[in-house]
Amino acid sequence: MLLQTPTLLLDEQKCRQNIAMMAERARRHSLQFRPHFKTHQSRDIGQWFRRVGVDKITVSSVDMAQYFADEGWDDITIAFPINPREAARYNLLAHSIRLNLLATDAEALRQILPAMQHRAGVFIKIDSGAHRTGLQPDDFEGQAALLSLIEASGMLEFRGFLTHAGHSYQARNTEEIRAVHQQSLQRMALVANHWRTHYPNLIVSVGDTPTCSVASRWEGVDEIRPGNFVTYDLMQVQIGSCSMEQIAIAKACPVVARHPERSEIVIYGGAVHLSKEHIELDGRSALDEWLDLPPGTRLYGLPARIQDNRKWLLPDRRSYVRSLSQEHGVIAASPELFAAVKPGDLLAILPVHSCLTINLCEQVYTTSGKRLDKM
Amino acid sequence: MLLQTPTLLLDEQKCRQNIAMMAERARRHSLQFRPHFKTHQSRDIGQWFRRVGVDKITVSSVDMAQYFADEGWDDITIAFPINPREAARYNLLAHSIRLNLLATDAEALRQILPAMQHRAGVFIKIDSGAHRTGLQPDDFEGQAALLSLIEASGMLEFRGFLTHAGHSYQARNTEEIRAVHQQSLQRMALVANHWRTHYPNLIVSVGDTPTCSVASRWEGVDEIRPGNFVTYDLMQVQIGSCSMEQIAIAKACPVVARHPERSEIVIYGGAVHLSKEHIELDGRSALDEWLDLPPGTRLYGLPARIQDNRKWLLPDRRSYVRSLSQEHGVIAASPELFAAVKPGDLLAILPVHSCLTINLCEQVYTTSGKRLDKM
Repeated sequence: MLLQTPTLLLDEQKCRQNIAMMAERARRHSLQFRPHFKTHQSRDIGQWFRRVGVDKITVSSVDMAQYFADEGWDDITIAFPINPREAARYNLLAHSIRLNLLATDAEALRQILPAMQHRAGVFIKIDSGAHRTGLQPDDFEGQAALLSLIEASGMLEFRGFLTHAGHSYQARNTEEIRAVHQQSLQRMALVANHWRTHYPNLIVSVGDTPTCSVASRWEGVDEIRPGNFVTYDLMQVQIGSCSMEQIAIAKACPVVARHPERSEIVIYGGAVHLSKEHIELDGRSALDEWLDLPPGTRLYGLPARIQDNRKWLLPDRRSYVRSLSQEHGVIAASPELFAAVKPGDLLAILPVHSCLTINLCEQVYTTSGKRLDKM
Repeated sequence: MLLQTPTLLLDEQKCRQNIAMMAERARRHSLQFRPHFKTHQSRDIGQWFRRVGVDKITVSSVDMAQYFADEGWDDITIAFPINPREAARYNLLAHSIRLNLLATDAEALRQILPAMQHRAGVFIKIDSGAHRTGLQPDDFEGQAALLSLIEASGMLEFRGFLTHAGHSYQARNTEEIRAVHQQSLQRMALVANHWRTHYPNLIVSVGDTPTCSVASRWEGVDEIRPGNFVTYDLMQVQIGSCSMEQIAIAKACPVVARHPERSEIVIYGGAVHLSKEHIELDGRSALDEWLDLPPGTRLYGLPARIQDNRKWLLPDRRSYVRSLSQEHGVIAASPELFAAVKPGDLLAILPVHSCLTINLCEQVYTTSGKRLDKM
């Protein structure tokens, strides 16, 4: 098959290794493994998780829950705050699968109660430091208000406390990730210890890829929900969660023009193929060292050469995607990379944020040419 | 219809006014109007252009050309550098419509020649200052090389010189836009004057929304190809191309949580609904004045209240979308906005970049509830 337009390639071997590695980490630390499927959104990749024993998952929307429920997944947490406008759909899902919802705002929870005719679990979202959403760990009054609504509902069952330590994305190495993790665990312990006498079976669920990739202490945690690790990406390399070799996806992009006077290569591959997510180098990460580019450099991806039409090599140092418009990408190329490519060639672009890049694709192909089903 | 999830709303009246305004500007300045359809990607909106007399269009991909060709558009310029890997598809399209391609790199042009069995036009891309791609205006040797290939091909016909003055996006008011425009026109005149004796019918085609929205002098230009103006967006307000009232799309997003301690509202509406495109306020634009927020503020959209379930008001001053993750948006809300909304309500988010926001949507609804077809 000739790749004509920007095409998402997935390295099945690397992807399966990432899955096996995380499943093994969960086993070693006696953690329930409920991976987030929002990164890949693929029933085929879901099957690779099944083969390592995964039987419950996390998703970020009702559509995604429905897609995976149709594929036989029957224990799903929608890790997004309850949206009152989807109450009827929650109820339908709760009829067919073991569904968990996420409560953050009492008003939102109150609004869905009349629609719930089937039993569903509820996690309470705790803000362990990311300040996106969730209740503060010491807001026992707010937690009590949600618990009362759950108790009084007759249909909802309290499952436990859930957090996403999104502030781990500010880390730039293993030590910094572990520091975020320890702080997050302390905050979750504060909540859990307060309520455990009332709810001895409550679950503590945490979920970001950086801490799940590197942390070795898991006291008080019952469940992990990482998602991004399935393919990783440049942001995770910058954070210190993974190596460049673990990145399991790349966008194959045709080269369409060269500009020798500024050593730039223009590719067919823009914001609608990669997303506008970018990294700004800050001189603190292993990615900076790898790239040998000055702090302040903003990049939208890294170009790597392709072998045998589909397998990509490690990216070229001192080369990066410097700008994206709707369909164009502009690569600031090292002299070596510039000399090596011409129009008609393909370059593999390692993405900054795999979740957004995969979301933009209608099709995913493995490096051995298999097409993977996607939402 | 109850809007349950993030939904793109389009104000048909504003959109048609934008179309009529641009068509009238083209007429007034005796310019051929070949609007870029990459912003809306909708055959229904294409019909609104037909009604103001438009019969030729611009697109940015072969898929888009095919989509509109299927709808009866028979004069289409693919304003993206020739991609050798799509040569066979160019040839197929050239069989059924009047197709124009865009040449930038001689090697790319050379590679498609064997496949071209049907006549197609070719524009040569000129870099009028944006430095994305295209030949320098004084690179007569490079232009001659492309022209020789076109002449020798037997199937390709030289149409003229095309540019996108993308550096107009650095402007912050009408005067700055006009300055970019004048510079761009001078550069195009340099090229056109050099070649006009050989090619008396050559077309000079320019195309960015900022200059097409405000410029009043068009000496030497034959054709305009703006696209974004069909809906405009916050970036265009910042540049000075349009007013807040002319923005014709907004994403209706359910409110799912409130955080009074930091006056923040969490919406169901993230990077997969709005794109990660952002604006950084710099104290230079009318948008800064409108918002009354400090320079350096980074925003991913502006929240506006919704009336009658679908019509949005002007956005709330001192409120903005401060961060986006995959599905969450966090709004830093003014006290007035914070007090006015609760979970279950909808907020309309005016997007930073309409092209990317529309591209992310599978469905578009008008504010009167009509569904518009989209690629």
